[in-house]
Amino acid sequence: MKLNKTTRLSLVEQVTTQIGSLIESGQWPVGYRIPAEPYLVEELGVSRNTLREAIRALVHSGLLKTKPGDGTFVISSSILGVALQRRLKESNLLETLEVRHALERETALLAAVRHTTADLENIKLNLAECEGSALVNDYAAFIEADIKLHRSIVKAAHNQLLMDLYEHVAESVRLSIGNMITNYQPIPHSNLVHAIIEKKPEGAAAAVDEYIQQFKDRIQATMEDPQ
Amino acid sequence: MKLNKTTRLSLVEQVTTQIGSLIESGQWPVGYRIPAEPYLVEELGVSRNTLREAIRALVHSGLLKTKPGDGTFVISSSILGVALQRRLKESNLLETLEVRHALERETALLAAVRHTTADLENIKLNLAECEGSALVNDYAAFIEADIKLHRSIVKAAHNQLLMDLYEHVAESVRLSIGNMITNYQPIPHSNLVHAIIEKKPEGAAAAVDEYIQQFKDRIQATMEDPQ
Repeated sequence: MKLNKTTRLSLVEQVTTQIGSLIESGQWPVGYRIPAEPYLVEELGVSRNTLREAIRALVHSGLLKTKPGDGTFVISSSILGVALQRRLKESNLLETLEVRHALERETALLAAVRHTTADLENIKLNLAECEGSALVNDYAAFIEADIKLHRSIVKAAHNQLLMDLYEHVAESVRLSIGNMITNYQPIPHSNLVHAIIEKKPEGAAAAVDEYIQQFKDRIQATMEDPQ
Repeated sequence: MKLNKTTRLSLVEQVTTQIGSLIESGQWPVGYRIPAEPYLVEELGVSRNTLREAIRALVHSGLLKTKPGDGTFVISSSILGVALQRRLKESNLLETLEVRHALERETALLAAVRHTTADLENIKLNLAECEGSALVNDYAAFIEADIKLHRSIVKAAHNQLLMDLYEHVAESVRLSIGNMITNYQPIPHSNLVHAIIEKKPEGAAAAVDEYIQQFKDRIQATMEDPQ
C-alpha cells in the first residue's frame, strides 16, 4: 500500500509538471480551454482522479481556472507572474513604483548600449504613436501606445529576467494609477527615447528618474487632495 | 453529485489557503515538521483525502516537502520566493546581476534618505564586522557579515516589496558567484555606508554602480580565463 501511494503522488506531480510546461511554453496559451477530461486521461495514460488532482494543483498555482459547466481555462502563463501579482496586491503604490523605478532605470541604461537597429525602429514607431494620440487627446490610445513603447525599450535591454519582472510590476502600477488618477496627464517619453538612440545610458537613466519623480509627486498630490 | 464535487474542490482550496497562510506568516517556520495527519484532520474538520490533496498542492507550490517515513516539512515561507528561485535557475549570472544592480541601487538611494538611528547602528555594526573579517582574511566570516550588511541596508530603505525581491535575487547571485569565483577578493562597502550615513543618495547609488561594475569585470575575466 505504501508503494502505491508513492507512485500515485509522483504521478500527480508528473502530470502537473507536464501540463504546467505546456502552459508556460505557450503551447496552451492564455484563454485556451484545455481538452476534455476523457481525452487527457487517454493521452496521459493516468486515472481520472490523478488528472483531476493535477488540474486542481494548477488551479491553486493560478495557471488554470475551472468555470463550472463551461470547462477549464488557461488564465496565466507564468507561476512567477501569478506570485508577483499576488504579492503586488499587498503592496502600496509607492512601494511598487519604487521597484518599477529600479527595474525601468536599469532597462534604460542597458537599452542605450545594447539596442539593435530593429529595436530602434520599434521604439521610434511606438513613440510616434504616443505623441500622435497625446496630440489629439485620445487617452485610451495613449495608454496602449505607452505600454507598447515601454515594452519595446525593455526588449532592447536584452535581459529576459528583467523583462519578466518588469512586465508584471508595470502592469500593477498601471492598474493602480488608472484607479487613482482620473484626470491623468500623459508624460511624454521623447527625452528617454532620444537618449537611447544617441547611446547615452546616463541620459536615459536620468529621463526615467525624472518621470518616476513626476509620478511620485502626482500620487502625493492626489493623496493630499483626492479631488 | 455535481454539488458535492464543487464543495470538495472548494474545501481543498480552503485548506490549502489556510495552511499556506500559516507558512507565509511564519507560524509554521522553515524547517518545521507539520503536525500528524490525524491531528490536522480533526483540527480542520476535513477528510483525510482533502487534507492530503491540499498538502500535495503545497508540495507542488514548493512550500512543503514530504520525506517518506519521516514527515512533511516546511521548506520555504514564500510562494514568490520559490517562483523567483525557479526562474533564477534559468537565468545566467550576468542577467541576474543586472537585476540585482537595479534593486540594490534603488535600495541605496532610499536608505540614504529614510534610515532611522537604529538602522544606522545596525549598518555600522555590520560594516565593522565585514572590515574585521577582511583584515584577518577570514573569507567565510566576511561573507556572513557582508550578507548581514546588505540586509541592514535593505531594511533601512523601508520598502517591503523591494526587500522581498532583493533577498531572493541576492541569494541567487551569491550562490552563482560562490560556485564560479574561487579566489574571491572581498569588496569593501565603506563608500556605500558613508554615503548612507551622510544622507547622500547619489553617492550611495554611485557606490553600488561601482561595485556591481567590479563584479561584472571579474565575471568577464573568469569567463575568459577560468583559471
